Amino acid sequence: MAAEMQRMPFFYNPEGRLVQVDYALQAVSRGSTTLGLKAKDFALLSSQVRPTRALLEPAEKVFVVDEHVGATGSGYIGDVNTLVDEVRVAAQRHRLVYETRIDVGTLSRVLSQHLHSFTLYAVRPFGASVILAGLDELGLQLVQVDPSGTPFRGSGFAIGQNADEALEVVRQGYRPDMTLDEALALTTRAIEGANGGSSQIEHGVVRRETGKFERLALAAAS
Amino acid sequence: MAAEMQRMPFFYNPEGRLVQVDYALQAVSRGSTTLGLKAKDFALLSSQVRPTRALLEPAEKVFVVDEHVGATGSGYIGDVNTLVDEVRVAAQRHRLVYETRIDVGTLSRVLSQHLHSFTLYAVRPFGASVILAGLDELGLQLVQVDPSGTPFRGSGFAIGQNADEALEVVRQGYRPDMTLDEALALTTRAIEGANGGSSQIEHGVVRRETGKFERLALAAAS
Amino acid sequence: MAAEMQRMPFFYNPEGRLVQVDYALQAVSRGSTTLGLKAKDFALLSSQVRPTRALLEPAEKVFVVDEHVGATGSGYIGDVNTLVDEVRVAAQRHRLVYETRIDVGTLSRVLSQHLHSFTLYAVRPFGASVILAGLDELGLQLVQVDPSGTPFRGSGFAIGQNADEALEVVRQGYRPDMTLDEALALTTRAIEGANGGSSQIEHGVVRRETGKFERLALAAAS
Amino acid sequence: MAAEMQRMPFFYNPEGRLVQVDYALQAVSRGSTTLGLKAKDFALLSSQVRPTRALLEPAEKVFVVDEHVGATGSGYIGDVNTLVDEVRVAAQRHRLVYETRIDVGTLSRVLSQHLHSFTLYAVRPFGASVILAGLDELGLQLVQVDPSGTPFRGSGFAIGQNADEALEVVRQGYRPDMTLDEALALTTRAIEGANGGSSQIEHGVVRRETGKFERLALAAAS
Amino acid sequence: MAAEMQRMPFFYNPEGRLVQVDYALQAVSRGSTTLGLKAKDFALLSSQVRPTRALLEPAEKVFVVDEHVGATGSGYIGDVNTLVDEVRVAAQRHRLVYETRIDVGTLSRVLSQHLHSFTLYAVRPFGASVILAGLDELGLQLVQVDPSGTPFRGSGFAIGQNADEALEVVRQGYRPDMTLDEALALTTRAIEGANGGSSQIEHGVVRRETGKFERLALAAAS
Amino acid sequence: MAAEMQRMPFFYNPEGRLVQVDYALQAVSRGSTTLGLKAKDFALLSSQVRPTRALLEPAEKVFVVDEHVGATGSGYIGDVNTLVDEVRVAAQRHRLVYETRIDVGTLSRVLSQHLHSFTLYAVRPFGASVILAGLDELGLQLVQVDPSGTPFRGSGFAIGQNADEALEVVRQGYRPDMTLDEALALTTRAIEGANGGSSQIEHGVVRRETGKFERLALAAAS
Amino acid sequence: MAAEMQRMPFFYNPEGRLVQVDYALQAVSRGSTTLGLKAKDFALLSSQVRPTRALLEPAEKVFVVDEHVGATGSGYIGDVNTLVDEVRVAAQRHRLVYETRIDVGTLSRVLSQHLHSFTLYAVRPFGASVILAGLDELGLQLVQVDPSGTPFRGSGFAIGQNADEALEVVRQGYRPDMTLDEALALTTRAIEGANGGSSQIEHGVVRRETGKFERLALAAAS
Repeated sequence: MAAEMQRMPFFYNPEGRLVQVDYALQAVSRGSTTLGLKAKDFALLSSQVRPTRALLEPAEKVFVVDEHVGATGSGYIGDVNTLVDEVRVAAQRHRLVYETRIDVGTLSRVLSQHLHSFTLYAVRPFGASVILAGLDELGLQLVQVDPSGTPFRGSGFAIGQNADEALEVVRQGYRPDMTLDEALALTTRAIEGANGGSSQIEHGVVRRETGKFERLALAAAS
Repeated sequence: MAAEMQRMPFFYNPEGRLVQVDYALQAVSRGSTTLGLKAKDFALLSSQVRPTRALLEPAEKVFVVDEHVGATGSGYIGDVNTLVDEVRVAAQRHRLVYETRIDVGTLSRVLSQHLHSFTLYAVRPFGASVILAGLDELGLQLVQVDPSGTPFRGSGFAIGQNADEALEVVRQGYRPDMTLDEALALTTRAIEGANGGSSQIEHGVVRRETGKFERLALAAAS
Repeated sequence: MAAEMQRMPFFYNPEGRLVQVDYALQAVSRGSTTLGLKAKDFALLSSQVRPTRALLEPAEKVFVVDEHVGATGSGYIGDVNTLVDEVRVAAQRHRLVYETRIDVGTLSRVLSQHLHSFTLYAVRPFGASVILAGLDELGLQLVQVDPSGTPFRGSGFAIGQNADEALEVVRQGYRPDMTLDEALALTTRAIEGANGGSSQIEHGVVRRETGKFERLALAAAS
Repeated sequence: MAAEMQRMPFFYNPEGRLVQVDYALQAVSRGSTTLGLKAKDFALLSSQVRPTRALLEPAEKVFVVDEHVGATGSGYIGDVNTLVDEVRVAAQRHRLVYETRIDVGTLSRVLSQHLHSFTLYAVRPFGASVILAGLDELGLQLVQVDPSGTPFRGSGFAIGQNADEALEVVRQGYRPDMTLDEALALTTRAIEGANGGSSQIEHGVVRRETGKFERLALAAAS
Repeated sequence: MAAEMQRMPFFYNPEGRLVQVDYALQAVSRGSTTLGLKAKDFALLSSQVRPTRALLEPAEKVFVVDEHVGATGSGYIGDVNTLVDEVRVAAQRHRLVYETRIDVGTLSRVLSQHLHSFTLYAVRPFGASVILAGLDELGLQLVQVDPSGTPFRGSGFAIGQNADEALEVVRQGYRPDMTLDEALALTTRAIEGANGGSSQIEHGVVRRETGKFERLALAAAS
Repeated sequence: MAAEMQRMPFFYNPEGRLVQVDYALQAVSRGSTTLGLKAKDFALLSSQVRPTRALLEPAEKVFVVDEHVGATGSGYIGDVNTLVDEVRVAAQRHRLVYETRIDVGTLSRVLSQHLHSFTLYAVRPFGASVILAGLDELGLQLVQVDPSGTPFRGSGFAIGQNADEALEVVRQGYRPDMTLDEALALTTRAIEGANGGSSQIEHGVVRRETGKFERLALAAAS
Repeated sequence: MAAEMQRMPFFYNPEGRLVQVDYALQAVSRGSTTLGLKAKDFALLSSQVRPTRALLEPAEKVFVVDEHVGATGSGYIGDVNTLVDEVRVAAQRHRLVYETRIDVGTLSRVLSQHLHSFTLYAVRPFGASVILAGLDELGLQLVQVDPSGTPFRGSGFAIGQNADEALEVVRQGYRPDMTLDEALALTTRAIEGANGGSSQIEHGVVRRETGKFERLALAAAS
């Protein structure tokens, strides 16, 4: 039956499930463990940098989208990169047309619509989930968008390998008034716990105070 | 046979049924329980907010389309959002061209045609039903549109999980001259009854008096 | 074999039949019983309004296309509505270009060509038959068009569920000089007879005298 | 094997036959018996009007294409009508551009090319054969075009149900110098003989004398 | 295996053969026996006119392309006619643009490219071979083009049913200095020999002396 | 499995091979034995002219592309001809735009890109390999391009039937300073040896001295 | 199952893997062993030139993209060449528009996007990986891009046959401050070790000092 589904995978199976979207989520769940966390004064993105072989620089896992917004993602790297390009272009275009910063809600809508349209037509859905963190008129924003184009807002997200375990660690340690250092320690603990050992992790943060999204110096594996 | 149907699912099966449209309705029936109710002085939209995990904001379930019209939906969230965008754009365009508010009948026709066209060509039908509530020249309007593009008008609708049970509760408690408070209590009871327990519910209402569609403060689970 | 046919259903089977068109006719035969009747002084459209649940307004079954023409249909409701929109637009366009009323023959040709083109290409045929009633230079006109785009002219048509039984009742009671009241009684009897019980029925009529197509007040179930 | 052929039916089978064209000819052979006959002074088109039920007007079977040309056809009625529209438009366009009547050879070429192109691409061939009768500079013309786009010229043609039997009757009774009355009697006898009983028949004729194609009053069943 | 090949027939089979082109050649081999013969002073095209039934004019088998070139073909008649139209249009266009006669090499290249392009894309190859005969600056020309678009030049060609037998007769009787009468007798004998009996044959000839391609009066069956 | 591959043949099989390209190479290996040989003072193209039947002129096997470049090919003749046309047009276009001769490297790139693009999309790869020989600023050039668009440069190439055997003969007899007569004898011996008997062979040569590519008088079979 | 996957290979399998991309990687792993190595003062590209037969020039394996950037690749040669053309055109276009050298990051993004887009739509992914080496404002750059469009940055890469073995040799011998001669010896040893014998190798280098990318004289097999 699974093989049969394969043929026209952008259609429903008899249970009304979009089979290829479900498979694309499988691709995400093989990606590196990636977290988003929003506290009172900052929003933090943390993504495991998988141990690479010698002579290979770790791939960029946290991206500056615009001065006030950053992104991270998990899944097929080519898909993550393409989606990040998509929101970067949207942010630039907004600056050109309106001469203001794009708000995070509009950015996530661009991302959702792009992902959703790849579930309607005879192409494959993207095999990637993306988390956006930014500051706009409405305050600090943390949004996750999945391969079906569904957006989620919240204070804590985990995608990629062992996401559930990592999220549980975050949930238990989370306080809205935690400091950035506490948060960095928490996401590091969550990623390392989920993957059973010390990990190299890339972080990015947007602070309420400065309103800038910055990539942090890559944390060495503990 | 079901697998066979899968191949060219936007065509008829020998009984003359559009198989993919039937499957899309299955997708709707897995969505969160969502109600529309129209009384003499108001039209109310109520949608269950599924219990989410910690750190996750519940998704918006009731949408302002234009000053005088709101919408809710059930099914694939990406599909619901895309359809709500579709009617929002239609409402804006109408204001620009005619400098008046769009009437609810025209809005539901836009929605029906959009949904219907996705049943004719080699794409998938949308896996979502939408309910519109608004006030226009013809009075209070409540319309539901399903994945095949069929519109329904009435005073009470239920879509999503356990819709039949919820609708039965509404039907028994409905009076045309009920107050908004009574209606809120009724739709809450219907959603909770259908899902076997207390639920968080999002409501939106358009009142004959003000002519404005407003999202109500999210009712805490009882 | 039937499953095999499914694959490229807009093509012929070895007997030279267009399989998907035959299946689309099955969709029509599941629709609500719908009649057209033309006498000396009027043409009448009558369509069963299927018993709906509480709180649901019955769907419009008889449509004004233009001042002098009406339509009804049976089959997939989204398909019927789309086809009615198609002829309404044709009628409007004709008024704009020629500043006269469109004649019924031209209208039915528009409808036939639209339906026919969906049998030639890799899309599904419409699952709906439509009956047009109007008055033009050539007198009173009653035309039925089926999913293959074939037009029929006559004084009595039945489509939808149990169409044969309903038509037989009409045939036995028909007289060219019958009054509108007699015709209303006859189509009501035919629809109720075919469906084994009293039915709510929507009627529309174009009278030779006034030349207007009017929807009649919905007849309560007898 | 036949089912296998179904898949890409606009391609050849191993014997080099165009399978869908063969199936389309099956569709023609189920149509109503239809004849074309050319004598010294006229060309006659005669098509059986199949006994219809009460309250149904028989469909037009013989069509005026332009003042000097007529057409008839057999097979899927929607297909016949579309093809007749095609040649009517070609005749009108010719008048507009060249301010003269189109000759029958050009008309049949238009028809052949239209039919042929539907055998080359991923669409279905038309399920209809058409006979044209007209008078032009070259004299009286009688041409039949089949679903593959092949044109035939001659003095006697039969298409539709039991075409072979009907043609045999025509062949035995044919004389180049027969009168129109004799020809009408002959085609009537041929159609009735082929269908085993009296039939309603529609005739159309173009006379060398007048150069006009006229539909004759519908002959009542004998 | 053959059935499997059917699916994507414009692709190669494992032996590197274009299966649909091979099948199209089967279609040609069912056509009427058709010859081309070039001697010192003329080039002759001869095509069997298959015995037709009474009242049917034999189809034109030899075509004037331009004053100095003619064509004949075998296979699906609709395909032959379309290809002849193609070269006629090329010849006309050449006259318009260059105000000279097109040479036969250019004409055959047009034909080859047209046929070849239908072997590359998802359409069917033409089921017809064509022979061109003409006189141009380079002298008398005789070219055959087959469904794959391959051109052949020579003094004797045979296509259609029993082509090999017919060609053998031509080969044995051929002399470069034969007269037209001898050539007509030879091609007649070849066609009749191949088909086991007397045949009606259509001939066309281009003479070095006049430089005109003429269709000859149809030779009655011997 | 092979049959399965047939379905979407422009995709990879699990071993990462482009199956249709491999099949297209099979088509080339059935073509006539064809050689390219480059010595100090000339580059030679030699192609077997397969024994044809009486009355058939052998097909041109060696083509002048431009004054200074020639080509030969093996495989489907329609494919070879189309590719030769492609490079001829590129050479002409280069003269028009730059008013200089195109260099052989650019020509072979045009050919490679054309062939390569037919391996990416849903069309068939060309079933032909081509060898170009020319003189440009960089000296004498000999390039072979295969159905995948891969170019090869060298002093000796063989394509078509028994190419390996023919190439071995060339390899053993090759000297960079051989004379044209020696090279003609060598390629003749290679082609005849590979095909087990005397063959008619067409040669073309570009000489360093004249810089012109010339077709040589067709060598009679030895 | 593998055969089943073949059908719509640009979609996910149930494990969420893009099957055709995996197969394309198989094509790369059959290519010639190819290395990239970046030290303090230079970046080096080294690609095995497979032993070719006599009379065949080895194919170019290292390409100058622009004055300051070079490329090499492994996999289908037609694919490698097309990708190199793609980045060359991007570099030229950048010079025309911005009148500066393109940076390596932008070049690798062009390459990634091109490769990625061939994984989304109904075409085949490229069967090639490419390594870019260049010097720009950010210093020496070494980037590898694989068939999915994923870019990797680092100081040592190996692609093609026995890439893992070759990379291990590089890893053991690598020092950031090694000289070019040491690096040439190292990549040579790595390629020869991986392929079990002496190999001809093509090298290209960009030096920090000169900022030019140069192809080195082809190293003779040791």
